Amino acid sequence: MQFGIIGSGSWATAIAKILTDNQHPINWWIRNTDTIAAINKRKHNPHYLSSAYFDTSLLHMSNQIADVVQQSDIIIIAVPSAYIQETFAPLNATAFAGKKIVSAIKGLVPSTNQLVNEFLLQNFNVQLSDYFAILGPCHAEEVAAEKLSYLTFGGLDESAAADIALHFKTDYINTVVNQDIMGVQYAAVLKNIYALGAGIAHGLEYGDNFLSVYIANSANEMVGFLRKVKHEENNNTINYAASVYLGDLLVTCYSLYSRNRTFGNMIGKGYSVKAAQLELNMVAEGFNASRCVYETNQQVQANLPIAENIYQILWNHVSAATGFKKIETVLI
Amino acid sequence: MQFGIIGSGSWATAIAKILTDNQHPINWWIRNTDTIAAINKRKHNPHYLSSAYFDTSLLHMSNQIADVVQQSDIIIIAVPSAYIQETFAPLNATAFAGKKIVSAIKGLVPSTNQLVNEFLLQNFNVQLSDYFAILGPCHAEEVAAEKLSYLTFGGLDESAAADIALHFKTDYINTVVNQDIMGVQYAAVLKNIYALGAGIAHGLEYGDNFLSVYIANSANEMVGFLRKVKHEENNNTINYAASVYLGDLLVTCYSLYSRNRTFGNMIGKGYSVKAAQLELNMVAEGFNASRCVYETNQQVQANLPIAENIYQILWNHVSAATGFKKIETVLI
Repeated sequence: MQFGIIGSGSWATAIAKILTDNQHPINWWIRNTDTIAAINKRKHNPHYLSSAYFDTSLLHMSNQIADVVQQSDIIIIAVPSAYIQETFAPLNATAFAGKKIVSAIKGLVPSTNQLVNEFLLQNFNVQLSDYFAILGPCHAEEVAAEKLSYLTFGGLDESAAADIALHFKTDYINTVVNQDIMGVQYAAVLKNIYALGAGIAHGLEYGDNFLSVYIANSANEMVGFLRKVKHEENNNTINYAASVYLGDLLVTCYSLYSRNRTFGNMIGKGYSVKAAQLELNMVAEGFNASRCVYETNQQVQANLPIAENIYQILWNHVSAATGFKKIETVLI
Repeated sequence: MQFGIIGSGSWATAIAKILTDNQHPINWWIRNTDTIAAINKRKHNPHYLSSAYFDTSLLHMSNQIADVVQQSDIIIIAVPSAYIQETFAPLNATAFAGKKIVSAIKGLVPSTNQLVNEFLLQNFNVQLSDYFAILGPCHAEEVAAEKLSYLTFGGLDESAAADIALHFKTDYINTVVNQDIMGVQYAAVLKNIYALGAGIAHGLEYGDNFLSVYIANSANEMVGFLRKVKHEENNNTINYAASVYLGDLLVTCYSLYSRNRTFGNMIGKGYSVKAAQLELNMVAEGFNASRCVYETNQQVQANLPIAENIYQILWNHVSAATGFKKIETVLI
């Protein structure tokens, strides 16, 4: 069972650490050859999660994505959703035939509003039975620090998901399996919007009391969307308090590691979206997600006053204060 | 409509601020005459929430509880649950006849494991139709700072609860009404146990990722208890993501204002229960609540592995680390 990892950001680097801590050799696609050279020399990724050190004898790094995919049986995709199309452009349509794909992406494909599995089906004929998602409340920084974290492995076939999960179980990673492959992905998209909003609220100087009301109501709004977006037969029996849904929302809204919260905080303090992006030099997934979900919800028709007001703040020049005055009125 | 407030801790003081900000005169029972003199002289409570200043012409303070009750139509009880029996000992059995009682207590009567309404029914024949609860995520410190907060008014009769809520609506307080008078009170008890546990986890140096999983699972466990504890006909239609349930759990688990979290943190760092109590010089409601709920659950038979492990840590000399190793195994 040969693992491949696509991407070298902090989450990709955390996954590489988990698998190599379990003595799995990995094929690792890294775009920049200087980064590859630096990891070989210094045994850590100088750009992201640099406190995680590697046994480099387990790392087979390459900047040729077609080679990495071809040599791997299980391919873990861990690039920001905004870059997925560009990253996979060099691959031919049969590149993933016979392989299992595990998405670690917490976002939709921006130009199409597709989930990653929908994109992979359309472009590479990847079937949902070969597709899995690694999600859950897991800031990479705490993986580097080996703080106990829980990862959920979503997949239509629970036993296949459990087989993959086995390779990720370590002293500091507990694993959970979940069949709701669509729902867990949408939850991961939505929570970034709400976390960005939590940051805005903090920037506007709302306090802890308000934040807890906002986040509780966000959890409710998220579940309303998940129940409507895919007409899964079992979606009334899903436990939406599980860590992959509510837990991930909480850590993203509350943790100071959260990029979405940080980005939102700047918006709340009066930075423009562009200024916040330039200042932070990063992609806050919740920014694009707010537009994708707004557009997706034109069909889904869930009741999303919180997410839609955040969309209006981020994309339609509604002031943060005005948007949150509207949000105040819908909270219970 | 004459309001009376029983108690002068931080939450009682916050309620006095809210009502007097709305120009309501209040009868205020304060045990200590020195405190009464200090408030008259300095226009603030020197011991609690001292940044809140009062128009003392609206305050009718007394250390005679029978007088305060007799002169009031709506009596707000805001003493720690451990002191309720002692506080009400001077009152005769008909003291509350014809009055509405509003509990702001987030705990059970320790020696009987009763909710406040059950205690009041047994000792003063207060009917549930005359009983209300003010609850929700609302640390008093943020009331003093006039940060927007949401208070929920629970009562069997929604319109009667709404009538009371009206008097509490200010620029910085939004109000919500809820008919689930038993459920909201039990939620307020349970969340203190989970918050105390969150503090223990923090003291044990678990990180943000784990804490979010722990709190999400605690929310689920709390709802499981609420669904079982009272066989309300409508308890499958209750929205347990409302601020009075999930919001209050979140603020109590996450806010640095939370006494339960602070107490738990000391336990997690290795202090004994006795040492933590002496050091903090305060009652952490979650400590007694863990025992009350453990005992209550002998009848209710809800599945409470998190709360029961916290009880074992606090009351049965199980080490914090051992208790949390067990909790780790039940989280999803």
